[in-house]
Amino acid sequence: MYNEEYYRLKNIADRDLLKYLPEEEEKSRSVLEAMKYSLSAGGKRVRPVLMLAACSLAGGNEEDAVPFACAIEYIHTYSLIHDDLPAMDDDDLRRGKPTNHVVFGEACAVLAGDALLNRAFEVMFEALINGDEKNRNRYLKAARCISEASGYYGMVGGQIADIEGETSGKKDMDHLKFIHKRKTGALIKAAIIAGAHIGGGDEKLISDLSELGELMGLEFQIADDILDVCGDSSELGKPVGSDDKNGKLTYPSCVGMEKTREIYEDVHRRTMELIEKLGPEAKFFKDFAGDLYYRIN
Amino acid sequence: MYNEEYYRLKNIADRDLLKYLPEEEEKSRSVLEAMKYSLSAGGKRVRPVLMLAACSLAGGNEEDAVPFACAIEYIHTYSLIHDDLPAMDDDDLRRGKPTNHVVFGEACAVLAGDALLNRAFEVMFEALINGDEKNRNRYLKAARCISEASGYYGMVGGQIADIEGETSGKKDMDHLKFIHKRKTGALIKAAIIAGAHIGGGDEKLISDLSELGELMGLEFQIADDILDVCGDSSELGKPVGSDDKNGKLTYPSCVGMEKTREIYEDVHRRTMELIEKLGPEAKFFKDFAGDLYYRIN
Repeated sequence: MYNEEYYRLKNIADRDLLKYLPEEEEKSRSVLEAMKYSLSAGGKRVRPVLMLAACSLAGGNEEDAVPFACAIEYIHTYSLIHDDLPAMDDDDLRRGKPTNHVVFGEACAVLAGDALLNRAFEVMFEALINGDEKNRNRYLKAARCISEASGYYGMVGGQIADIEGETSGKKDMDHLKFIHKRKTGALIKAAIIAGAHIGGGDEKLISDLSELGELMGLEFQIADDILDVCGDSSELGKPVGSDDKNGKLTYPSCVGMEKTREIYEDVHRRTMELIEKLGPEAKFFKDFAGDLYYRIN
Repeated sequence: MYNEEYYRLKNIADRDLLKYLPEEEEKSRSVLEAMKYSLSAGGKRVRPVLMLAACSLAGGNEEDAVPFACAIEYIHTYSLIHDDLPAMDDDDLRRGKPTNHVVFGEACAVLAGDALLNRAFEVMFEALINGDEKNRNRYLKAARCISEASGYYGMVGGQIADIEGETSGKKDMDHLKFIHKRKTGALIKAAIIAGAHIGGGDEKLISDLSELGELMGLEFQIADDILDVCGDSSELGKPVGSDDKNGKLTYPSCVGMEKTREIYEDVHRRTMELIEKLGPEAKFFKDFAGDLYYRIN
């Protein structure tokens, strides 16, 4: 589905993803099992991969970004567990497997999400304390941008607008953009900016990669919306058309499929232009955006 | 209920508690309202107060600890919102008011908790970035010890053991100690240690205050268990005997009231001995422990 370099970076993230979890305590084993279950449920590791690639592009050492890459995957995974809860999207399947609360019960799923979110920050503080003092400013900026994307200004804000949109039946583009920017876009953008900070990128590069992160988050989300209608259910890990069934606000439900593809083409074109400007060092991002484009066409 | 110095420190925490919240965004207003609701529901601010007091005791400037004090109250408040959820303790009343999910619905309550936990870390990263570089190590240690107390090794671990203890009917002292140490003790201890780090305490003081934090967390929890049986429901904000009704594992349910009071007396005596050793600078802690003792006798 993706290119070779993608899988090389994914392997680095997968290698350490469980290593940064807390040590098991017997009396609270179930929560740790629930955390591991969702972390091991076959995620694509898009955010860690983008972070590692951005760190390289900025001239840094990939290994420096690994704890932050694992932390961002913990945050992404926590958000999936909580989003699937009966009180939220009430999903029983995720990536073809029973969701966390179906397996471990609702209380344990809430706590596993809480513990993953919390652990992400523990891992980042640890990396900050153990890291070289001369890198602290850059690492702190990375951590701050991840935390902003995860909270009220990011995923939490997007999720409440999504849920309230479902019940109020709001179908306007303004509402859709608010949701997408925060719910998916923010953390993808943060992955890229954080990687650039960790890699030691200068202001100009951070600014370019911030724009790239914005575009890629958007492209990624529109592609997801299209695939939910036209994709392959075995690849999606959920039935085709589930957004529509759940009354989700998506690009196709808002402006129709034809217009959605037009918007996608426009975003893709702008992404590719920006990547060209970044030069040959940005090859990974070119291939990544190309693979995404190939998938939906 | 507490002494004058307690209220002076509480006022400092209350002054800035809402100030560190995110700016309102119209489409996600409900979550921010839910966050404010629980933050404004009349908490005693024990953890912020202890942190500010420990910072002073270590010779630091109270104001330096304020963002961290607000962050720890956000974490405490998030844990109350999630603990009250129908899937967890299913409580409708907290401090005499309807719980968060009763007012805002379950989805919004989960997200308000998530956003408060996340915001705590955003505030700490911000304080780290804006703070003086020479204080970074100390501030990072404070942040790490708060994050550890809040996650799997702390509150989350305690809460799952508490819930599983209820359903399995486990009534042993070993299980009770595990729960108390993590669910209440850890964050109280972290408040004191974090305050000492921020205030610039040396290793000896950090070690002494770590012991004090452990004892105070324990004393606080046993007092809470006693008050749930013998207290005044208007002061508790919930009906007397609610732990027993919910099948909660407590000191009285585990070893009876007489033995519980014996254990409390022993912990209190050890707390006071340690405080004496710390000298006149520890007057606040002496008064605080004294007030607690007075309340339950």
